[in-house]
Amino acid sequence: MRDFSTDHRWLSINTATIRKSRGVEQPLPSIIEACAQRGIRAISPWRDQVAAAGLPVISKLVNDHGLELSGYCRGGMFPAVDAVGMKAARDDNRRAVDEACELNAACLVLVVGGLPGALAGKAAHKDIALSRHQVSDGIAELLEYAKAANMPLAIEPLHPMYAADRACINTLEQALDVCDALDPSRSGALGVAVDVYHVWWDPKLEAQIQRAGKDRLMAFHVCDWMTPTTDLLEDRGMMGDGVIDIPKIRGWVEAQGFAGYSEVEIFSTGNWWQRDSAEVLDTCIARHRSAV
Amino acid sequence: MRDFSTDHRWLSINTATIRKSRGVEQPLPSIIEACAQRGIRAISPWRDQVAAAGLPVISKLVNDHGLELSGYCRGGMFPAVDAVGMKAARDDNRRAVDEACELNAACLVLVVGGLPGALAGKAAHKDIALSRHQVSDGIAELLEYAKAANMPLAIEPLHPMYAADRACINTLEQALDVCDALDPSRSGALGVAVDVYHVWWDPKLEAQIQRAGKDRLMAFHVCDWMTPTTDLLEDRGMMGDGVIDIPKIRGWVEAQGFAGYSEVEIFSTGNWWQRDSAEVLDTCIARHRSAV
Repeated sequence: MRDFSTDHRWLSINTATIRKSRGVEQPLPSIIEACAQRGIRAISPWRDQVAAAGLPVISKLVNDHGLELSGYCRGGMFPAVDAVGMKAARDDNRRAVDEACELNAACLVLVVGGLPGALAGKAAHKDIALSRHQVSDGIAELLEYAKAANMPLAIEPLHPMYAADRACINTLEQALDVCDALDPSRSGALGVAVDVYHVWWDPKLEAQIQRAGKDRLMAFHVCDWMTPTTDLLEDRGMMGDGVIDIPKIRGWVEAQGFAGYSEVEIFSTGNWWQRDSAEVLDTCIARHRSAV
Repeated sequence: MRDFSTDHRWLSINTATIRKSRGVEQPLPSIIEACAQRGIRAISPWRDQVAAAGLPVISKLVNDHGLELSGYCRGGMFPAVDAVGMKAARDDNRRAVDEACELNAACLVLVVGGLPGALAGKAAHKDIALSRHQVSDGIAELLEYAKAANMPLAIEPLHPMYAADRACINTLEQALDVCDALDPSRSGALGVAVDVYHVWWDPKLEAQIQRAGKDRLMAFHVCDWMTPTTDLLEDRGMMGDGVIDIPKIRGWVEAQGFAGYSEVEIFSTGNWWQRDSAEVLDTCIARHRSAV
């Protein structure tokens, strides 16, 4: 297992982590500058942040600073109620692949979607099995496009508390079942993003990380689970502040040969997004060394 | 699958559902009277409510009204940091078995506990595997006592969002693994409580219900998952208001031969506990017929 205690060579910042500073939305160029100033070598930006600044602007900034993208957030949201919705999702996902290529991302992260309409509080139906079929079909179709573009797709299993509204792939086992079905040869075109927040609770986690192996392990995300957790989405903790044994999980991932970035992804309306983003970044660096 | 549309013969009320009326705590005798007045045939009371009224009082009330107990809430909380804590848990669980016997409950429901101290926001450690070992050991020991008392134990897998603070058994598969290890002969002394709120998201749910079979399916709990869910513990929905396909899951359970009560268990600080408990009970009856 790599020693992270003396530097932050393998720290990546998911740009949602400092999306807000003192509660105020931050433009992506400022976020990138702040990372670069601290010798951070990689980021994982969100599409809406990229779009707001303009893809060429971000592409140039990333290049000028020699930054890598540990991933690109995000594609997915496949389920829909009709052909129009399906096509819109397909087209949008292809654009996401194109953007990921332009930014030379390591992978496009897929948050696959749940019951159509649920995110807006109005689920069109209750058939999660149907959504899961649509997700599998959607990934299969996108995979062809992504293979041609040479952009790996990383399915991110989300915590079961997001099954209805954000992602109906909820365990690593389930994600790997999809990988095995769609890419049985382990071509490197399809894999998983392991976020400790989503999977730490899983009694089968170690076994499924072993099953994934190096060629399926495309991204490793960290934050922490707080007790109590006061919001289902935006109360993630800083590494070391919660109950997840992050080094143990990183050890399992690295035992398979994963040697990429440890990406910090924190959504925190009430705490970290209220602080100055400089403090948040400095804390990420410190905790990357001490608690990851 | 049984037809629930014309009566509520198989409705049970978990007494937490009307623990509060218009925000005010209700004594268990009043709750029991309200259920009996509506021809409800079963309840599942909580130990603290029983203790507040006195076990003999509740025992007499239950008998006088000819009520059944679809379960008794609850035993469990096995993990501890030292021998003193272990012994306290063991003794308390034995008392829970005794109380369940006095009330002639169908089973004692086990919420097994998570990381010691996490419920109070101060987890003593991050070793969830250790907690899981302690849970298995604790159930094994309690099982001997419960067998002698002829009181079945029902392990309730809790939603993964409760893994840290309430229960580190988080899937039906995991609960059944414990059942298979501790009661391989399927003696009827150990099984599971299936609460749709905790398990609805699980892609392996149908298969694991089949694996459980009639002799392991000891209780069936219903409520609904709301989108959005605003609180991790106390924002459960009324059946029909959320995204869970409850009839489908009931169909799976009944296909295995389960023929017991459908127990409504709703914790709802912001909605149902603010209403008059008479309205809540009437709604439970109506939704039992239309949405379960």
